[in-house]
Amino acid sequence: MEKRGNKEWKFNKKCEKSVKSGAPNKLTVRVAMGMLREQLKANDHRSVVPMGHGDPSPFQCFRPPPVAEDAVVDALRSTRFNGYVGGNGLPAVKKAVAEHISRDLPYRLSENDVYLTVGCKQAVHAAISSLATPGSNILLPMPTFSMYDACAAVSGLDIRHYHLLPEKGWEVDLHSVEDLADENTVALVLINPGNPCGSVFTHQHLEHVAETAEKLGLLVIADEVYEHIAFGDSPFVRMGVFGSRAPVISVGSLSKRWLVPGWRLGWLVTTDPNGFLHNSELMKRIKAFLEVASDPATFIQAAVPQILEKTNDEFHSNVNNILRKDAEIIYEILQKIPCISCPNKPQGSMFVMVKLDISILNDIQDDIDFCLKLAAEEKVLVLPGSTLGMTNWLWISFALEPSILEDGLERIKGFCQRHSKIE
Amino acid sequence: MEKRGNKEWKFNKKCEKSVKSGAPNKLTVRVAMGMLREQLKANDHRSVVPMGHGDPSPFQCFRPPPVAEDAVVDALRSTRFNGYVGGNGLPAVKKAVAEHISRDLPYRLSENDVYLTVGCKQAVHAAISSLATPGSNILLPMPTFSMYDACAAVSGLDIRHYHLLPEKGWEVDLHSVEDLADENTVALVLINPGNPCGSVFTHQHLEHVAETAEKLGLLVIADEVYEHIAFGDSPFVRMGVFGSRAPVISVGSLSKRWLVPGWRLGWLVTTDPNGFLHNSELMKRIKAFLEVASDPATFIQAAVPQILEKTNDEFHSNVNNILRKDAEIIYEILQKIPCISCPNKPQGSMFVMVKLDISILNDIQDDIDFCLKLAAEEKVLVLPGSTLGMTNWLWISFALEPSILEDGLERIKGFCQRHSKIE
Repeated sequence: MEKRGNKEWKFNKKCEKSVKSGAPNKLTVRVAMGMLREQLKANDHRSVVPMGHGDPSPFQCFRPPPVAEDAVVDALRSTRFNGYVGGNGLPAVKKAVAEHISRDLPYRLSENDVYLTVGCKQAVHAAISSLATPGSNILLPMPTFSMYDACAAVSGLDIRHYHLLPEKGWEVDLHSVEDLADENTVALVLINPGNPCGSVFTHQHLEHVAETAEKLGLLVIADEVYEHIAFGDSPFVRMGVFGSRAPVISVGSLSKRWLVPGWRLGWLVTTDPNGFLHNSELMKRIKAFLEVASDPATFIQAAVPQILEKTNDEFHSNVNNILRKDAEIIYEILQKIPCISCPNKPQGSMFVMVKLDISILNDIQDDIDFCLKLAAEEKVLVLPGSTLGMTNWLWISFALEPSILEDGLERIKGFCQRHSKIE
Repeated sequence: MEKRGNKEWKFNKKCEKSVKSGAPNKLTVRVAMGMLREQLKANDHRSVVPMGHGDPSPFQCFRPPPVAEDAVVDALRSTRFNGYVGGNGLPAVKKAVAEHISRDLPYRLSENDVYLTVGCKQAVHAAISSLATPGSNILLPMPTFSMYDACAAVSGLDIRHYHLLPEKGWEVDLHSVEDLADENTVALVLINPGNPCGSVFTHQHLEHVAETAEKLGLLVIADEVYEHIAFGDSPFVRMGVFGSRAPVISVGSLSKRWLVPGWRLGWLVTTDPNGFLHNSELMKRIKAFLEVASDPATFIQAAVPQILEKTNDEFHSNVNNILRKDAEIIYEILQKIPCISCPNKPQGSMFVMVKLDISILNDIQDDIDFCLKLAAEEKVLVLPGSTLGMTNWLWISFALEPSILEDGLERIKGFCQRHSKIE
């Protein structure tokens, strides 16, 4: 028999006919980071300043609490947690997460409300993929966090973007939510504290979001992966506080607050005191998804109760103090750069969105060009806003050692001065 | 505004209209295990004998190699692996896995052939979900491993079961493959060493499978999670040996051979020397899936090169020796039980399928009834064949401490004698 050419395998014929394939953005974060890294000059002996992702773990000042590391080692060394776990996580761990989240709620969760996931990302994947039915759409913020867009695209769920309002501390534009929602709109994603905007929503604003969701019949997916990383005027409030108005699925993880994004320990939690989600077809689908998906590593799960219990407040306030200092540094230095405007001083998370005035720069075409040249000339990595649908904005992480952050910002300032049309 | 009832939320309306929801089997393994556990009598002071799942980790004789545990602790304590990893795994780790698998192949893999996954399960999820296009179907074995059925159902991929032949050492019935395949058949799943049958396919049989796949234009998904757990006459041969005939995606993990199923470290590997898969739409879809899915924990990834390099042959041969002994024990004792027939002595993996002759038993209606009563009367957990589509068969794990296995089998023997119609 003659050998088959590549195009004759049936999986190729079928897959090529099908449309579903990956992220809708032309420029993904991963592709952009690859392009930026290619610009780095080997003969520039300065260190790279990585302001392009929310992973503070390389910096000495952002080490996880020693009790967390010890808890993982103890669980591993015990040899009791090398095996599989069924039922969406070890019961004692789900209970500990339920208690942890209940501290911020006017009602108590039980372990049955908690599903342990492989990082917050798997929780998002489970929720988005389970919401995808023919013709359904979901409301995502703009600026978006592009993982949601990629996940909805892979799952075949239509996307509509509502606006966040820079002039109002990046609050949700509830009019745009009402305008966008129709009979096929199943859910709204709310990221608080906000990535990429560094916003922290007030109790009152969250209540308005809940009212709108109730009115429109929407599920709220509350991405609270930056829980309690709030260092401005407003304290962190969980969307689940309003779970009696509209059904809320909350997703989160150890990643940010405990500074261990690589440990891949997250959760999906139904904060749903009225039982809107209880026995729903959606939760059946989420359970079916998680049944065929993998669990987080068992010995890492087993460490969670110790981690939640033994990490002291001082650790968390120390992290927030460093981030507050970082937020002040970035806000102050950016004020001195004419081509960059920062609508709000960051109040939480590890990011800020700033607007670029291309018109006063020489030889810079747009945000992508800005970031490529900045990487080439200054070894500073900053993500172009285009990666999340905001042309001529920049998406900057400030979760760096403060002295390194200052160094990076001074390099950005020098870069902008060199390229400025204004003397 | 009046409060919304549960049925008025739009996600409920949309999800209820949609069909996709979970496993097609009426009796899943999880449900069956739950039913069996409910039968256990607290006033029976004997230990439970767990012969219902492939997780040997609770037994002292199946401890992971100390070098593996040390490698994980070292990676964690280094503080270098608390962060995210992009690109489907740390490059050095993908390279180590490529080298590991290349040892069994007539050609060499590169790190670009390797995608690290959260256990073998995520590799399966990525492959099956990416193959799901409207109208496509996949060929799964019967007896099946029900995770594949559940995954295909959740993904919306149609399932057809080909036969494994008990009278031929559970080899693939290639005639049934040819009869089942049509223009919409995209892939065939082959599990070798076999779960649930304990089979190990010969070089010659795998070559015949490759010829058939080539003729029919099928991708082969080779589930090799039990790689090298072969203790009978045939050595383990990778399906990738025949990757030049038909495209082969191989999935595997540390779970079984290193006895750490709970560490959730697996891989999806293209063993594809002719580049059938290279640049295919299928691989784009798999990459897009893994892009929105979570990676395995970074510090566990980082331990893999040490684990692969430093686990000595003695460790692996010791595990195989215990399992060979277990296979002999189970085969010998089952021969003495008239209502059970075991078509083949297990040659690999940790499982065996045996046939039940209900006609010579009193008060036992079928395999499910057999297993429920066995749990109630003898505290022995064995899964009914119905969980994988084989009514009146039993699916038994023999990966237990040999003395505990003997105890369990003697209890089964006593149970069968008590319920026998024959004096």
